[in-house]
Amino acid sequence: MNANIPPAEIGMLLKNVDTPALLIDLDAFEQNLDHMAQRLEGTGVRFRPHAKTHKCPTVALLQMARGAVGVCCQKVGEAEAMVYGGVRDVLVTNQIVGDSKIERLVSLAKQARIAVCADDPVHIEAYGKIAGVNNIELSVLVELNVGSNRCGVEPGEPVLKLARLIEETKGLRFGGLQAYQGGAQHLRTPEERAAAIQAAVDRVIDTTTHLTANGIACPVITGAGTGTYRIEASSTIYTELQAGSYIFMDVDYAKNLDTDGKPLKEFEHSLFIYSTIISKPTSDRAVLDAGHKAVPIDSGLPMVADMPDLEYAGASDEHGKLILKDPQRNIKIGDKLKLIPGHCDPTVNLFDWYVGIRNGRVESLWPITARGALR
Amino acid sequence: MNANIPPAEIGMLLKNVDTPALLIDLDAFEQNLDHMAQRLEGTGVRFRPHAKTHKCPTVALLQMARGAVGVCCQKVGEAEAMVYGGVRDVLVTNQIVGDSKIERLVSLAKQARIAVCADDPVHIEAYGKIAGVNNIELSVLVELNVGSNRCGVEPGEPVLKLARLIEETKGLRFGGLQAYQGGAQHLRTPEERAAAIQAAVDRVIDTTTHLTANGIACPVITGAGTGTYRIEASSTIYTELQAGSYIFMDVDYAKNLDTDGKPLKEFEHSLFIYSTIISKPTSDRAVLDAGHKAVPIDSGLPMVADMPDLEYAGASDEHGKLILKDPQRNIKIGDKLKLIPGHCDPTVNLFDWYVGIRNGRVESLWPITARGALR
Repeated sequence: MNANIPPAEIGMLLKNVDTPALLIDLDAFEQNLDHMAQRLEGTGVRFRPHAKTHKCPTVALLQMARGAVGVCCQKVGEAEAMVYGGVRDVLVTNQIVGDSKIERLVSLAKQARIAVCADDPVHIEAYGKIAGVNNIELSVLVELNVGSNRCGVEPGEPVLKLARLIEETKGLRFGGLQAYQGGAQHLRTPEERAAAIQAAVDRVIDTTTHLTANGIACPVITGAGTGTYRIEASSTIYTELQAGSYIFMDVDYAKNLDTDGKPLKEFEHSLFIYSTIISKPTSDRAVLDAGHKAVPIDSGLPMVADMPDLEYAGASDEHGKLILKDPQRNIKIGDKLKLIPGHCDPTVNLFDWYVGIRNGRVESLWPITARGALR
Repeated sequence: MNANIPPAEIGMLLKNVDTPALLIDLDAFEQNLDHMAQRLEGTGVRFRPHAKTHKCPTVALLQMARGAVGVCCQKVGEAEAMVYGGVRDVLVTNQIVGDSKIERLVSLAKQARIAVCADDPVHIEAYGKIAGVNNIELSVLVELNVGSNRCGVEPGEPVLKLARLIEETKGLRFGGLQAYQGGAQHLRTPEERAAAIQAAVDRVIDTTTHLTANGIACPVITGAGTGTYRIEASSTIYTELQAGSYIFMDVDYAKNLDTDGKPLKEFEHSLFIYSTIISKPTSDRAVLDAGHKAVPIDSGLPMVADMPDLEYAGASDEHGKLILKDPQRNIKIGDKLKLIPGHCDPTVNLFDWYVGIRNGRVESLWPITARGALR
């Protein structure tokens, strides 16, 4: 109820935005969008950014205006938000289980190009049962375990068996391989990331070789995140990239290192939690109005933007505790700060609105229509 | 959008509830409600449970039907949800900063009994400015630092100064002391918890003695959580208790120990995330549809209910990885499990509906109207 009311009005000064609020620095955000588009231009690799990061069709359409072919989603509810918001090409990078969810997915496939993943005959049978009677053809990718040991089958014969089953099932066609190496994204050195993606590429090649030898073409090899996308892009194997976090960056991704051993500064922080100092009991301690419910800590604590002498030292449900390392820092109750989230994806999921900021004013209010779309 | 659609219908079998969903085991929940009411009966201590746990006026009214005098809230948006839902007595256990938030609080004070906290003259001045011109009297409690070193002033003279300032300010009256020892709630042994609360009690007594000596009465001493409430209840000092998590219990609270060194089994787990197995790539690994966005890990990983041989071993944004320790466990894609959350408060904040279950069927669907009420 409260969450549905925007924390700002268009044209308002930033300092008047109510807190906690989720801010986008529009200049930094657009620079990230443009940088990725330039990086991928001429590579021949399609870009299908992951919408689980932003959960907002407005953002998806900005990505597509810069060349993205569509988006990835994790949940049917996210795919609905994207299709209803104007996106016409969605890959659900996940196994969808349960007839009611598959019915919703097949319904979307009547309005948009929809693909989904499988790593077991059970998925294929369930998809086919519903797609087959709805007179549509659903693209089904087989998820390959490329090293994360989460979902996905092993290379070669297990993929071939599933691909054949898909091809034999009315209403389905084999769409290719879902080959995302999530575990590689936050390996800190470029060498570690390169080795992990090389191992993934080897598994993909083993598989496509086996498929080709058995007369099955593999039109799509899709994967990659913000931490490794340049490696997959130059692999000559991957045909689609799924990186999503590049638009916002977070504290965790900013710890990835470049070849010179320094933090990789390819994208800028563009996502912030705007927060107010509500208490300042001592000269070295202040308390913010943003805790676990505004800025999740699963990938580490947030950082205070622009003020390195302020340390976000701990969170409770609704409070963030700041340590003031510089006694000269004049900070007082009512002051507002920008926090850089530790992990952008679960942070976005806590808010219903993006407040877009440019030149110190609110330029846009975008509804996060897939907030809470868990199903 | 998707989140606003309930995952179930009244009367449905549990196994047909869509996932992820937030379940309440109504028998266990009511047992917790009743147990707390019995514990506090005859103690003369008022009970004002914290609504930041449940964010739902329906739950608040069930607590009040069993003797609670009202609720605590952390945010103005939570207080709005409670008052609009029929609760007529709310303590905001927090400093509220910003004129627009104080305007909303004062508006609520025209419909309900509202109290709020302060730990600085800045708060008192801001409350007075708005309450004074609205012809209401807002109760303001001074927050005392009782050992958590978060918000709050030190005992004695600093409290007296603020109490006097409140009394001198038109539209405000001194309501007493906010004396919550959050840091004590998860100390694991009863001895540690008792020592921490004794230290808090000593600080309260120092303060009330000083107030009394200076002619200021202190009508309310409020604090306590689920981990320590019995200590405050028998302190003869605290007049109100704020425990909230007792209604649900979570994995973290269940680690608190009793005097016999075994986990304190006073309340039952009544809150669960219902989740579906979406992939089972190997005999010892399965993947669930509930990750960071369904079950936050700030206080540790969730546990699988009723099946101790299944370990929730890791979360990513939308996936939970299960280790199957018993090779005989016959579990398959499509099976649904109940997870006990690591920390109930931020988990509740991710859902829009409680699905109340009794005897294997959906008995109730309660909207979580303060979900996302950060402001």
